[in-house]
Amino acid sequence: MHVVVNAATSADGKLSSRRREQIAISGEDDFDRVDRLRADSDAVVVGVGTVLADDPRLTVKDAERRDRRLEDGNPGNPARVVVDSKARTPLDADIVDDAATTYVCVSEAAPVDRRMALADQSDTELVTAGEDRVDLLRAFAALQEDGLERVMVEGGGELIFSLFEVGLVDELRVFVGPTVIGGRDAPTLADGEGFVEDFPTLDLEGVERIGDGVLLTWTATTGE
Amino acid sequence: MHVVVNAATSADGKLSSRRREQIAISGEDDFDRVDRLRADSDAVVVGVGTVLADDPRLTVKDAERRDRRLEDGNPGNPARVVVDSKARTPLDADIVDDAATTYVCVSEAAPVDRRMALADQSDTELVTAGEDRVDLLRAFAALQEDGLERVMVEGGGELIFSLFEVGLVDELRVFVGPTVIGGRDAPTLADGEGFVEDFPTLDLEGVERIGDGVLLTWTATTGE
Repeated sequence: MHVVVNAATSADGKLSSRRREQIAISGEDDFDRVDRLRADSDAVVVGVGTVLADDPRLTVKDAERRDRRLEDGNPGNPARVVVDSKARTPLDADIVDDAATTYVCVSEAAPVDRRMALADQSDTELVTAGEDRVDLLRAFAALQEDGLERVMVEGGGELIFSLFEVGLVDELRVFVGPTVIGGRDAPTLADGEGFVEDFPTLDLEGVERIGDGVLLTWTATTGE
Repeated sequence: MHVVVNAATSADGKLSSRRREQIAISGEDDFDRVDRLRADSDAVVVGVGTVLADDPRLTVKDAERRDRRLEDGNPGNPARVVVDSKARTPLDADIVDDAATTYVCVSEAAPVDRRMALADQSDTELVTAGEDRVDLLRAFAALQEDGLERVMVEGGGELIFSLFEVGLVDELRVFVGPTVIGGRDAPTLADGEGFVEDFPTLDLEGVERIGDGVLLTWTATTGE
């Protein structure tokens, strides 16, 4: 499995404002890059916070890219994955529409009626792993067993931090846009508890100007 | 007056961990760049939070650079400025040692005995501006009247946000280093309340790999 985290931040590292409203950080050129990356992925993953805040559909927007996937024997859209410890994904969320298979990863702490309601949605697969919070290593292992090898993560900051915590991130692509959001309570690229020692280290693989910003591509430093 | 904000952040936009401990984000090459920028400045500004957390001295480390400043008729080190609404700068802080003139910018709300004790330090100038918090526009105008034209700001995130809020930032230089810090409570490049609309926009002037990271140079977009 290869896990790419992709995000757009302001010049000060924020994903959105303290109100968690989506802010136009990147432009058309970067949207196209993200769409291409989705089309090249087997699965696109988000945390439930992102579902509740933005209600993303996470499908491939470009019809030619969907056609090419179908020609290659893949579904038109990559699978979608929500990491959702308490099964809070609304039944009418776009991420559980019928455009693609959606895996909802929940913990044992999720209410049974919520789990059953989500499992009842057409083309939704429940993955249960972990007691109070989703055990990401086990959940991602289950996804891999289902053939999902090229995995793209689109946020938010809580999920991204958790993935770094368990060492699941292979690559981090950050589009840094030409704006300042500020705010000690605004979501950042990696939230959670934060590291206080043994900080994950990265290697800078690429620096590319895109539109009015810059795309930084980092890979996780391996232990070698 | 030309105000350059300079900072080093992790790949996820943090200045330090949630414990506010300094973390080695940049290396020798970037330290040298920062020293050169200090040597080219009339004043180096920090918020009192940075003084309390890191006790920085903010002097020019390279002896040749100090000599060159002296040859040019300048003091060996640039002036130091602390933005310190409540006059909390400790009297034994390195920033008020005798290596350079230090301006302590306080508000009317700062206790009089603290203000007097700071004013008593040799080579310390008190600037009082603002009722409860330092009025940055007035304080920086006072600095400019004292001949401080090329101003460098070294953090922290609260001060940097406040400077963007009042439109005092001309240039933002961010060294983005190859590490992940994470943490919803870790200090970021721009903290404070945060913007929710009318986000300041920037122009990306330069992208330069330095050591294992990258220096992004942004200028504030002018209204023109």
